[in-house]
Amino acid sequence: MSSFQIRTDLALEARESINESEKELRGVRVEEYYRKEEDIQVTKVIVESKNAAKTMGKPMGTYVTMEAPALVEPDEDYHREISECLAEELYKMLPGHEEEQSILVVGLGNREVTADALGPQVVDNLFITRHVVKLYGKAAYNCDRINQVSSIEPGVMAKTGMETAEIIKGVIRETAPDVVIVVDALAARSTKRLNRTIQITNTGIQPGSGVGNHRNALTQESLGVPVIAIGVPTVVDAATIVGDALEKLLQEDNEFDCVKYMGQHRHAFTELNNMYMTGKDIDAVIKRVSFTVSEGINIALEKGME
Amino acid sequence: MSSFQIRTDLALEARESINESEKELRGVRVEEYYRKEEDIQVTKVIVESKNAAKTMGKPMGTYVTMEAPALVEPDEDYHREISECLAEELYKMLPGHEEEQSILVVGLGNREVTADALGPQVVDNLFITRHVVKLYGKAAYNCDRINQVSSIEPGVMAKTGMETAEIIKGVIRETAPDVVIVVDALAARSTKRLNRTIQITNTGIQPGSGVGNHRNALTQESLGVPVIAIGVPTVVDAATIVGDALEKLLQEDNEFDCVKYMGQHRHAFTELNNMYMTGKDIDAVIKRVSFTVSEGINIALEKGME
Amino acid sequence: MSSFQIRTDLALEARESINESEKELRGVRVEEYYRKEEDIQVTKVIVESKNAAKTMGKPMGTYVTMEAPALVEPDEDYHREISECLAEELYKMLPGHEEEQSILVVGLGNREVTADALGPQVVDNLFITRHVVKLYGKAAYNCDRINQVSSIEPGVMAKTGMETAEIIKGVIRETAPDVVIVVDALAARSTKRLNRTIQITNTGIQPGSGVGNHRNALTQESLGVPVIAIGVPTVVDAATIVGDALEKLLQEDNEFDCVKYMGQHRHAFTELNNMYMTGKDIDAVIKRVSFTVSEGINIALEKGME
Amino acid sequence: MSSFQIRTDLALEARESINESEKELRGVRVEEYYRKEEDIQVTKVIVESKNAAKTMGKPMGTYVTMEAPALVEPDEDYHREISECLAEELYKMLPGHEEEQSILVVGLGNREVTADALGPQVVDNLFITRHVVKLYGKAAYNCDRINQVSSIEPGVMAKTGMETAEIIKGVIRETAPDVVIVVDALAARSTKRLNRTIQITNTGIQPGSGVGNHRNALTQESLGVPVIAIGVPTVVDAATIVGDALEKLLQEDNEFDCVKYMGQHRHAFTELNNMYMTGKDIDAVIKRVSFTVSEGINIALEKGME
Repeated sequence: MSSFQIRTDLALEARESINESEKELRGVRVEEYYRKEEDIQVTKVIVESKNAAKTMGKPMGTYVTMEAPALVEPDEDYHREISECLAEELYKMLPGHEEEQSILVVGLGNREVTADALGPQVVDNLFITRHVVKLYGKAAYNCDRINQVSSIEPGVMAKTGMETAEIIKGVIRETAPDVVIVVDALAARSTKRLNRTIQITNTGIQPGSGVGNHRNALTQESLGVPVIAIGVPTVVDAATIVGDALEKLLQEDNEFDCVKYMGQHRHAFTELNNMYMTGKDIDAVIKRVSFTVSEGINIALEKGME
Repeated sequence: MSSFQIRTDLALEARESINESEKELRGVRVEEYYRKEEDIQVTKVIVESKNAAKTMGKPMGTYVTMEAPALVEPDEDYHREISECLAEELYKMLPGHEEEQSILVVGLGNREVTADALGPQVVDNLFITRHVVKLYGKAAYNCDRINQVSSIEPGVMAKTGMETAEIIKGVIRETAPDVVIVVDALAARSTKRLNRTIQITNTGIQPGSGVGNHRNALTQESLGVPVIAIGVPTVVDAATIVGDALEKLLQEDNEFDCVKYMGQHRHAFTELNNMYMTGKDIDAVIKRVSFTVSEGINIALEKGME
Repeated sequence: MSSFQIRTDLALEARESINESEKELRGVRVEEYYRKEEDIQVTKVIVESKNAAKTMGKPMGTYVTMEAPALVEPDEDYHREISECLAEELYKMLPGHEEEQSILVVGLGNREVTADALGPQVVDNLFITRHVVKLYGKAAYNCDRINQVSSIEPGVMAKTGMETAEIIKGVIRETAPDVVIVVDALAARSTKRLNRTIQITNTGIQPGSGVGNHRNALTQESLGVPVIAIGVPTVVDAATIVGDALEKLLQEDNEFDCVKYMGQHRHAFTELNNMYMTGKDIDAVIKRVSFTVSEGINIALEKGME
Repeated sequence: MSSFQIRTDLALEARESINESEKELRGVRVEEYYRKEEDIQVTKVIVESKNAAKTMGKPMGTYVTMEAPALVEPDEDYHREISECLAEELYKMLPGHEEEQSILVVGLGNREVTADALGPQVVDNLFITRHVVKLYGKAAYNCDRINQVSSIEPGVMAKTGMETAEIIKGVIRETAPDVVIVVDALAARSTKRLNRTIQITNTGIQPGSGVGNHRNALTQESLGVPVIAIGVPTVVDAATIVGDALEKLLQEDNEFDCVKYMGQHRHAFTELNNMYMTGKDIDAVIKRVSFTVSEGINIALEKGME
């Protein structure tokens, strides 16, 4: 119906965009549960067939979405309860989590653009252990089992002249992690999900949307190791917002031909293409959300070790 | 006609928003000239009557707008030609410029929010002289005449707990500058003006729009000294963008009742209220534009001195 | 005996530098206690007479020093126990703490110089309430009593062209706080105190040492309101280090004339004058210590309110 | 004679530390010239034999040192003349410079520690072309010949958990540059060389000194491509300063046994081991020097292309 591409990084929203009649889509399994105490809605969308993947515009795999309205609010304890829920979901998705392993966390995005700084700020607060274990052994941490955690902030192509994937591939070849966790700021379709939602997926990262499009595929297929992606939507695509307003209009006014209208105003829409929309207090939000996410990763990577 | 408030900090755009028939508004004088070599269009809007001020939604005073398409582009020399044009216009507007004087430059905005960091980044690159002249005399600069330049980055209310105006008033009382220059990131109505336009006005800053709304009045009336404001539009208000799309629509479809539509969708529009829209490469743009503006101020404040 | 000026911001060290025989100095009262659980040694030095002040090189007043070796170490909880001890000592020293009051916290120092960034980083993490109470009343915090907390990072003279004291005086005149708390990075005499010690004093800040010397007097006398200074030594003065090495030498070698030696090598010592010494991991240390100090201030300013 | 290790990254200083009698060392060739107009002293030290390398404590290769006293001073034009001299010397040392090639510039060091931020700040200002040429061809730059320039800031081991060399090797394997240029902040022996000297060498980087010791070998041998290192001394090692003071003393006082003394005071010296000394205005200095160096690299990499 719509000539709009679905511009969202959230599987949850991709599914919502599908016509009601198709929602009981074959090949898509949905599980939901609500954590009352923490006020977190967890939705697991499992895309099981190629056909479903095509309809959704999302690759096959598992997408866990945590909707936590509190995430965007200030909190003395940086929402420890959300970190712990994230840790649980991440731990479940982490292949080989019962063994000690080596994990590389990649902070995607541009530290200099506030809404895109989630990845870099998350890796700032990780508990990094690989170099210590390599140099001094586990004794340095006074424990029998420990994961070797490393991290990298690859930067953006305009500054490095290299694709993010090139840098990550090189680092993986040289340091041979067992798993890669990629953290990135996402684009949502709806402003109401901004900074309130965490998505965890075992499909990695596909080229396409995101805040800065600093991406080619970062997937198990391209990198050769399992890739888990953690993302928080921090922006809404500007063209999407305008398009949505027009679609609402269309629903009320059957005379109005949305597609024709957009064709006639192509220039106005083109000019929106490299724009994004974000909140005015985005700096404080990103700082807090990053801390909650990094603590979630820290807890997950210490689970089962001691 | 429109139920939209004119959401622009640019006098130029405020004037464009007025119905054609009213453009020959009594009390508004417009002078334009084009600098061919530098490709800079300079427009001077002088609002001369209270009535005109009300219609325009802009206080009485002089607004010089430099439209310089090259401003947004990378340049080895940071667009020295634009700095020089800015210096000229600023110098003309600077009261008492033929005498040595003391000038306080205020960098408004939030350094941590990329699109709002223009003011802070401009003061980073200023040539500050006041303390040296006070401690060592003009001899330190080997010259007979020199302005005493000081600067402050007052920060944002969420971090200081104080209105910007309180901080500035205090500093003015204590250091008694002859003139204040305020630098701030602005909101434009049209994406095509983003980062391509510099506005210089002797009306100071009014509470209202801007990126972060970090403002109550910073005007000659409130501060007791002449206030010149220099601004560059770096964002577009999100509600404005959507509203504009709807208005275009209205022009084509006389059946469509824009005001009614917006009333019915109040929630969607409210949610846009604290959002703004900006470009994806805003970090690099702000860095470059800030440098061009700070050089313009530096040159202006050295003019006539030696 | 020594031709060295005592280069330390710590009253504790100033006192140690005094000859043994003079330690029972009239006009200096010392109280000590040890908090075993937290491993914090608290020493209170009260300089009660002008004479004692002159011998110590420190103004009359109370100096509380917390020696907390753990402060420099990483800790998941950012050493909450040290924050709480700091809060207790700060609260005791805070005049009028049983009433609601307005408190301005000043973060001295240069954010761009790692070892000097303590003050700016502390104010980044404060719980700022003044603007909210002014705009929405205490209801906004759902409480009956609350302090109005504001903060400012005045920056350094090379960037502002103004003395820190000018800016602070202006802000005080305009916003009329009841008390000022000043936070600054200090210089210690001994490397073993670096980043392990917190000094709290009701004498404010005197021009002189510190990392960046960004100071003229910030005292009750100069500002007109009580001033409490909180400092952590993050650097050692380079000339002090070299001088100390020479003095140790002197103690062992009676033939060696230290004063003469230094006279003969004046140039080498002069060149050290604008140098300081700090640790290689100073960035991580400052980040952690700042957080512990800001939490201490937050807790103190919430004590007795609810 | 001395029990001190020679703690300097400058070949020039290493050579000065050698006894006078040995200076006419076999296997070390020295060429000097003075550029009067720019006030730059250029010294080329060529270490030609293994024996000489051992005595110098520097690997075989060519070391060009530019002593430019103006480098540390503010300058409106960021010392373009020094950038041009650096470009010339770098260009001469660059293998294959007459052909188009692919060049990876590595910014070593810790952006968060001011004195160690030279490398990261230099790569911030480079003219990066590789991605544009790859995506759009040389046509994008309107030229026939152009080098493909990429850059990376690998970060420090405490944050990444990886050795710098691991990251660089991986990136080289994946992107196959023809030459690597490494930029780093160095440690000097003498405060008078701080921020006034640029060293260019084709020996790459050896593990050892530097500000943050973020290094294992980055050399042609370890990386498989030619490596040119550009460094500016921004700190003096603390132990070196104290040791130097003692040695001067020794020269005057033959009774004094420096080695014995240091043995007796081992603790005091150990405690200096992770300390460094730097100037109080290091932030402004690093910002300016970085710009001069990055311009030097930009000019060199555009030479001969068009």
